[in-house]
Amino acid sequence: MILRGVATKGPAPMITVLAGGIGAAKFLEGLVAMMPPEEVTVIANTGDDAEFHGLHVSPDMDTVMYTLAGWADRERGWGIRGDTFHCLVALAQLGEETWFQLGDRDLATHLYRTRRLRKGATLAEATLELCRAASLRCRIIPTSNSPAPTRLRTTAGMLSFQEYFVKLRQEPEVLEVDLSAAERAAPAPGVLESIREAAGVIVAPSNPLISIGPILAVPGVRESLRNTPVPVVAISPIIGGKALKGPADRMLASLGLGASAAAVAELYRDFADVFVLDQQDAHLQAEVESKGMKAIVAQTIMSTTETRQQLARTVLEALRAVPRAAING
Amino acid sequence: MILRGVATKGPAPMITVLAGGIGAAKFLEGLVAMMPPEEVTVIANTGDDAEFHGLHVSPDMDTVMYTLAGWADRERGWGIRGDTFHCLVALAQLGEETWFQLGDRDLATHLYRTRRLRKGATLAEATLELCRAASLRCRIIPTSNSPAPTRLRTTAGMLSFQEYFVKLRQEPEVLEVDLSAAERAAPAPGVLESIREAAGVIVAPSNPLISIGPILAVPGVRESLRNTPVPVVAISPIIGGKALKGPADRMLASLGLGASAAAVAELYRDFADVFVLDQQDAHLQAEVESKGMKAIVAQTIMSTTETRQQLARTVLEALRAVPRAAING
Repeated sequence: MILRGVATKGPAPMITVLAGGIGAAKFLEGLVAMMPPEEVTVIANTGDDAEFHGLHVSPDMDTVMYTLAGWADRERGWGIRGDTFHCLVALAQLGEETWFQLGDRDLATHLYRTRRLRKGATLAEATLELCRAASLRCRIIPTSNSPAPTRLRTTAGMLSFQEYFVKLRQEPEVLEVDLSAAERAAPAPGVLESIREAAGVIVAPSNPLISIGPILAVPGVRESLRNTPVPVVAISPIIGGKALKGPADRMLASLGLGASAAAVAELYRDFADVFVLDQQDAHLQAEVESKGMKAIVAQTIMSTTETRQQLARTVLEALRAVPRAAING
Repeated sequence: MILRGVATKGPAPMITVLAGGIGAAKFLEGLVAMMPPEEVTVIANTGDDAEFHGLHVSPDMDTVMYTLAGWADRERGWGIRGDTFHCLVALAQLGEETWFQLGDRDLATHLYRTRRLRKGATLAEATLELCRAASLRCRIIPTSNSPAPTRLRTTAGMLSFQEYFVKLRQEPEVLEVDLSAAERAAPAPGVLESIREAAGVIVAPSNPLISIGPILAVPGVRESLRNTPVPVVAISPIIGGKALKGPADRMLASLGLGASAAAVAELYRDFADVFVLDQQDAHLQAEVESKGMKAIVAQTIMSTTETRQQLARTVLEALRAVPRAAING
């Protein structure tokens, strides 16, 4: 069903995108403006899913969904624009921990998802229903239907992803990313197929360690990316040695990988055919190409509708222009 | 623990109140002003508990809790004063049924309770924690820790309590009150003890069929009321043949019991020692006394702090003045 286009129309028009949160969401906004959204499949990171107040929260999926629905709070970078926090304040008065902020409208998503999961729906089914209610035309698939939480060994001890990311504001140094739960999880139905049978695969400009990493760690995903007959284009989330948002640069450094776009390319070298560098990183082109992939230089800072769409156009052109065997064979 | 006063101080100072929703809540407001709240135990109806959006909602307990905490919306008669409904609107946008209105602040109570129940707490434990957070000094005990939903056979078919009460606005005629779930439920710890060992028991002015009835139906409750050595005072919720709020009058009529305070006295005749009639029903005094209980006439419309406290004072005096054996032996 996910690959309806492929199955019934001959050459697969489907584009599959591996996605984390906000960077991926911005890129997807551009992408669905440049091609039929129905032909976009998003494999969303679920490694930072967590339970708060008994509710299943999927922060990355929700960021993508809210952004594509036009509901996202762009200023804040999470949640729903104009949301209120009355329930959260009341929960705090009941003595509950409320460092993970959940708006009143946002809560409806988590209530819906949790209720469906408890009734026996899979996370993929609940996600599909939420996307339909948000009138999204693209498809979002969670990486796995089973919980596969990313854990982090840090200078502040072992932490859940949200403890590190939200509660401790990414302040501790990350010493190890524990993806063992993802390594034991089964990919959700459609995940591997959407990589193997797409017309092209895009790795969104998301944190390679904690957004894309948990997707790659699920059995079969990395192998499918290596073996898919279609090209894989990855976009660097690191620009001039810095992450636009989030701790990717500091994590790459503290893990000894080096805070540069080239370090990200290195992490993807076994499956990426094309690597998109920001203009500021043009000097890394040769280094990236030495890893056996084509390096493209583009404007990757997506602060406007135009730049988001331009980046999507560049990536789609790269997918069309680059026969996989020629690059990564 | 509940009967600490009894166990450690000789004569039991504890007053136990069987309570439904708003009428009981108002009476309790008066009562806790007239005696140490620590010496009040409320047995709250849980027959109208229901699940909405995966959350355990206890409308009668919450009405009592919110009222005693000073949070209740008096105008509306339910929920928290000044509450907003942003989550509910978002749930409606997700296609969820939202005829049962839950405010954003109110949701915090249900999220807390549901999370605690899923973690293995009993409803009584979750209630105790909520009451502590609300700084209540009296004790609220749910009738049962197990779900015991009241169902109603009506001219619109079999309905859950909230379908009848909220969704269909009490419009169908009630043909039968099905308390079979309550009849199979175990009383929560402390329920029977608080009746047997109190200094006095009060039946609040609540609907005798759907608020007090589900409490009486739980095994052991009615028997404890009959056998308790202390006096039981019941307050009529019917005034001049009408319920101040809710469908008690119409239900009494449609069930063939007659919409009068005397009909309520009849329902309680096996355990009530004193029955409090409103001034408007002074003419029923002889009829009520013919059922083997003392009838007291008082102002039972509790529209002000003063009238609430005066009614509580009257009832407490009745409890003190009426040795049980003399009345109902």
